[in-house]
Amino acid sequence: MIDPTKQAFLTSLFDAAVTAADARAALEPHLPQRPKGRTIVVGAGKGSAHLAAAFEDLWDGPVQGVVVTRYGYSCPTKSIRVMEASHPVPDAAGLAATDALFEAVSNLGPDDLVVALICGGGSALLPCPPQGLTLEDEQALNEALLASGAPIGVMNAIRKHASGIKGGRLAALAHPARVVSLVVSDVPGDDPAQVASGPTVPDAVTLEDALSLIKARGLELPPTVLAGFVRAPMPDDPVFEANEVHVIASARLSLEAAASAAEAAGVPAVILSDAIEGEAEVIGQMHAAIAREVATQGRPFKAPIVVLSGGETTVTLRHKDGRGGRNTAFLLAFAQAIEGMTGITALAADTDGIDGSEDNAGAFADGGTAVAMRAAGIDPADALRRNDAWGAFDGAGTIFKPGPTGTNVNDFRAILIDG
Amino acid sequence: MIDPTKQAFLTSLFDAAVTAADARAALEPHLPQRPKGRTIVVGAGKGSAHLAAAFEDLWDGPVQGVVVTRYGYSCPTKSIRVMEASHPVPDAAGLAATDALFEAVSNLGPDDLVVALICGGGSALLPCPPQGLTLEDEQALNEALLASGAPIGVMNAIRKHASGIKGGRLAALAHPARVVSLVVSDVPGDDPAQVASGPTVPDAVTLEDALSLIKARGLELPPTVLAGFVRAPMPDDPVFEANEVHVIASARLSLEAAASAAEAAGVPAVILSDAIEGEAEVIGQMHAAIAREVATQGRPFKAPIVVLSGGETTVTLRHKDGRGGRNTAFLLAFAQAIEGMTGITALAADTDGIDGSEDNAGAFADGGTAVAMRAAGIDPADALRRNDAWGAFDGAGTIFKPGPTGTNVNDFRAILIDG
Repeated sequence: MIDPTKQAFLTSLFDAAVTAADARAALEPHLPQRPKGRTIVVGAGKGSAHLAAAFEDLWDGPVQGVVVTRYGYSCPTKSIRVMEASHPVPDAAGLAATDALFEAVSNLGPDDLVVALICGGGSALLPCPPQGLTLEDEQALNEALLASGAPIGVMNAIRKHASGIKGGRLAALAHPARVVSLVVSDVPGDDPAQVASGPTVPDAVTLEDALSLIKARGLELPPTVLAGFVRAPMPDDPVFEANEVHVIASARLSLEAAASAAEAAGVPAVILSDAIEGEAEVIGQMHAAIAREVATQGRPFKAPIVVLSGGETTVTLRHKDGRGGRNTAFLLAFAQAIEGMTGITALAADTDGIDGSEDNAGAFADGGTAVAMRAAGIDPADALRRNDAWGAFDGAGTIFKPGPTGTNVNDFRAILIDG
Repeated sequence: MIDPTKQAFLTSLFDAAVTAADARAALEPHLPQRPKGRTIVVGAGKGSAHLAAAFEDLWDGPVQGVVVTRYGYSCPTKSIRVMEASHPVPDAAGLAATDALFEAVSNLGPDDLVVALICGGGSALLPCPPQGLTLEDEQALNEALLASGAPIGVMNAIRKHASGIKGGRLAALAHPARVVSLVVSDVPGDDPAQVASGPTVPDAVTLEDALSLIKARGLELPPTVLAGFVRAPMPDDPVFEANEVHVIASARLSLEAAASAAEAAGVPAVILSDAIEGEAEVIGQMHAAIAREVATQGRPFKAPIVVLSGGETTVTLRHKDGRGGRNTAFLLAFAQAIEGMTGITALAADTDGIDGSEDNAGAFADGGTAVAMRAAGIDPADALRRNDAWGAFDGAGTIFKPGPTGTNVNDFRAILIDG
């Protein structure tokens, strides 16, 4: 049994994080002024249909346009067309969507407004091989980049010079219309030019930079792909002069909202990082080490405190029939490492409301959770090995199931230390 | 090239940590008063010979006794006998050492003083199967406990009731002499009863507690072993009344010494934890995430700051001929995750001076280190996969090689963020 007061407190922090990332709540403070001319919406990413629907609701005036989302990620809209395409490997439907976005921003005037709704996944949904290259070439490039293990910034630097839409080119095409990009970030650091490879947001990485990154990392790209590279426009290009870019939601903003909610409830909060990656159970062990240090030594933070973190951990699957996901795997390692301690209570959950294979977002844990698992006949270490974190928390009775949230800013972890 | 000033600063913190764990420096403030009667030294653990030699140097008066250390870990002493035995699997030489320690503390009077020098590894070096059990039974128990993955506290709770020396029994035998235990801790939390299974330090775990832990964890122990369990004495037993216990060195004390050294140099310091466990490269990723958060967002700590941590990470070996150890593996993941950033400089090193297979203690890294590796023709991600962290840092020219230190409080990590 988790202390109900603490459980309610941690749930309120999750709610604050999710609300901050909600499409409508995120868009509202960033709506541009209504233009003299037309309002065109374009967009790409896994959440673009939801963003388009929320925009239509909020927008005072006529709007048209087109967004592309992943197969199965559509939702009803009024006047904005929603297309679907393949993610993460681009397909021909993505090519058609790219064409539709180009058409939507063509032949606009200086009084027209383009609102670009950009979120994670948009890069694969907008394939656009430069002249002389094919969709297969773009797929091959993407595969080589993913296999290289290069960070997102390096991958995007290269992709931008091998595409007719990325690196701000869609915005360049919309010129002389004004382009306002409203970006839901899924990248560490929240650089809007990195989200969906920045179709409306140029960055300063030159073609020469991209070629030297390819060389420095020893990337072996097909010669045809290399020959097809085209120079992306730079941020100081006059076509971008009237444009605006706003990051309207991100893991960082959601964690900051949770921190504010904690502090409003009288509990100080710290954010460790919004971009923690790595094997979930090891990240859980390290969070537990820090929580123990707070609880037993009063450092690096003084209790009472909520320690918050986000990012996107991974789970190495050892069993195909494992139940659970990265947040429960994180928490199962955490629960074992604080077994028997008092004054530590944690929630780990996926902000989209679904952690992996089951219908829960995550779970709660305190010093009694591993004990409760054993009492239920479950060995927590063995459950972790069998990738059955869900079964272990179900046995302990500490599953967290708010249902799908309609938003996604990756992992959410809140650890209350008040002992 | 690491900034030489920063490299010198980080090295001074490592030196402070190692000095705090040095046998002589650690013993000196804790020397007991000279007794009216005899002074007997007993001891066990990987560092017990060094502790005995340092004690002889510092002690003003005659001293005799015996300590047991691991094969190859002896050093010259004057009047204290040094025995060697097998670690981590106990052997017959360990049985002989246990007998020698028993003999050393037998037939003492109330004016006599026993100084027990206890450090990591002592549990395996002092086998003492209870009546009816054999060395093989004790080995089998140990194997079953290690395979269970139970934390050290649980393993020791069980071991103490299956031994004739652990759990304070050596001190009980020394009664009515006064026993002063000087303990170098290698366990999270620094509970002296957990170091070397506490031959001179009783704890409050009862035989019934131990049996219920065995049941709760579903441990399958040989029935002969279970039948041989004997009740360990409790801390409130009058035989322990005159005794004293001091933790004279530990990861915690060494990190605190490093923090003091940083602050004396004008740089604030925080300790994340002295007991971080888990796969070295993932722990490196998470340290990098926190360092990036400090550098880019000014939280959870304000720069300039030194972030310190300790513990004992592990490396999953994928290649038998890998060069390096857990500290360089940690740092190689860290270096990739901060590539290109300014204002972050880190040292990761083993406090015993040797990190794994080569003759270095660890290495330095900053935002240019991964770049330098690439320039030397080394792909850092590939080197990490091949368990060749040493090769990568050797290529970058940032190896840290202070030589063996003669002490060991596990990992030492210091990350300076001043950008």
